[in-house]
Amino acid sequence: MNRQLAIAVIGENDPTPELAALAEAVGAEIAAAGAVLVCGGLGGAMEAACRGAHARGGTTIGFLPGTRREDANRYVTYPIPTGLGHVRNILVVRSAQAVIAIGGRYGTLSEIAFAKIDGIPVIGLHTWELKREGQADGHIQQASDAKQAVAMALEAARRRSGER
Amino acid sequence: MNRQLAIAVIGENDPTPELAALAEAVGAEIAAAGAVLVCGGLGGAMEAACRGAHARGGTTIGFLPGTRREDANRYVTYPIPTGLGHVRNILVVRSAQAVIAIGGRYGTLSEIAFAKIDGIPVIGLHTWELKREGQADGHIQQASDAKQAVAMALEAARRRSGER
Amino acid sequence: MNRQLAIAVIGENDPTPELAALAEAVGAEIAAAGAVLVCGGLGGAMEAACRGAHARGGTTIGFLPGTRREDANRYVTYPIPTGLGHVRNILVVRSAQAVIAIGGRYGTLSEIAFAKIDGIPVIGLHTWELKREGQADGHIQQASDAKQAVAMALEAARRRSGER
Amino acid sequence: MNRQLAIAVIGENDPTPELAALAEAVGAEIAAAGAVLVCGGLGGAMEAACRGAHARGGTTIGFLPGTRREDANRYVTYPIPTGLGHVRNILVVRSAQAVIAIGGRYGTLSEIAFAKIDGIPVIGLHTWELKREGQADGHIQQASDAKQAVAMALEAARRRSGER
Repeated sequence: MNRQLAIAVIGENDPTPELAALAEAVGAEIAAAGAVLVCGGLGGAMEAACRGAHARGGTTIGFLPGTRREDANRYVTYPIPTGLGHVRNILVVRSAQAVIAIGGRYGTLSEIAFAKIDGIPVIGLHTWELKREGQADGHIQQASDAKQAVAMALEAARRRSGER
Repeated sequence: MNRQLAIAVIGENDPTPELAALAEAVGAEIAAAGAVLVCGGLGGAMEAACRGAHARGGTTIGFLPGTRREDANRYVTYPIPTGLGHVRNILVVRSAQAVIAIGGRYGTLSEIAFAKIDGIPVIGLHTWELKREGQADGHIQQASDAKQAVAMALEAARRRSGER
Repeated sequence: MNRQLAIAVIGENDPTPELAALAEAVGAEIAAAGAVLVCGGLGGAMEAACRGAHARGGTTIGFLPGTRREDANRYVTYPIPTGLGHVRNILVVRSAQAVIAIGGRYGTLSEIAFAKIDGIPVIGLHTWELKREGQADGHIQQASDAKQAVAMALEAARRRSGER
Repeated sequence: MNRQLAIAVIGENDPTPELAALAEAVGAEIAAAGAVLVCGGLGGAMEAACRGAHARGGTTIGFLPGTRREDANRYVTYPIPTGLGHVRNILVVRSAQAVIAIGGRYGTLSEIAFAKIDGIPVIGLHTWELKREGQADGHIQQASDAKQAVAMALEAARRRSGER
């Protein structure tokens, strides 16, 4: 089976209008490219991204912290009620071949960290910068807009699929 | 969004030809009914069920114990590499509104137990019988063939959706 | 380091007085034998077992479903707030070299299933009996009282330690 | 029961000799203060910290990624074989009332993120610095040596216990 690429979108629960618009544009670009959108299934940047994908006829998978399917936002095609709380963050990134981080707080940081542990590429839009004593920068590839972020994510996802 | 029902199929990694044929027929019935099939994503009864669903144009979600998408059987539409080992069993049942158990060993038993903890209905085909001192029987509804098992699962899933 | 043996006690949240007394006696025997008692950290059979161990100067580890240490019963020496809900059941059994099941419902059944998946011996006191079509009985060794259950668990734990 | 405070030590699997010495000194200080040391149970900074605690008669709890108790370093009093891979990082921080991060890579970053999600204080020794666009610094309290790090961790842990 020739599977679709899967791209995760992570970020703020409570985004500014600018970040929400960015998330919606990212979702639309993912769907337009024929990829599946994976996310945390709730509101904020997650819902905006799903809405963008849904408007373009895309498919979305939402990993929920609780055990109720009904908690998914209305644009989630396949809700996954994990009952694992924040641990579901790890499932979001592992289900994707590349991750786009939009803004975000410590939940997003945990997702970035787990993506890096597993070698999954992370593209950033106005998100965390990471530094460690005695290490060079460059941990997260920063994009400047939705179109570029999705193009970078798809290229990284294809490269990663090809390698394996 | 009017979502599809989701039915989990659990069972043997290494089924007899009879149980594998049963799993394939169950998968085909689930797809024919327009529901999504959820499973553990690997071989045996899981692969047979996915093959049956795929042949009828159905969608399948496979929760993998490891972190490699490539481990999914070829009939899995959406692989979910969890990296959680047997703990992924819990995600299989939580993602569904009813569970069909076909044969199975202790992995299947753990899935039955977690389904019962969360109140998700379980339909059995040649699977575990459970008894506890001083309690009445009837923990698992037993079906006699694939068609009946899927009909019972869909009815239980609809009742459960309606209740919530 | 010559480590203490670790024995898990699993069972009812809401036991009859007879089962609670049994759990307390099991806890006392575990402590008297110099082993560590592992459990789910809350009330019912878990608390009774911890109280028994504590009265004999034993050490107890309690894996909590939530993220609050304060939820542990007062006889837990080391609370482990997992935030994993019922998934913490798996940690209880994996932390032990043998498991004693006292009564119990589906949570206990999930723990028995996970113990069997991992090859950890299970001793039963008035708990589940398991059967599968076409398989012989004998899945759980049944004990008749607390002293015998702990003796059987310690022997199984020592055999298992020795094997590895 | 008046429980001991629990302090987590997280950091490099493969530390420089300087960081290993620092971890050992941190472990010794934790034990000297009568607190329990919690860690990931394997080698590197984890083993150095446990060795330091053990030399001072302290107790250590090690959350292992695999399912084999034998994988714990020899200074772990209570091994917890989780079988959850890197997800066990989350259990390490949740089991503690304060966290000391020594050097570290993405595993350590995931632990810092999960500590912050749960509001558990983090003290840093030559570890990550975190920045986000438009946010002030100060996410991790940096200490300059082992004694100061443990003093800061104990004070934060006591404050946190008192608050709840």
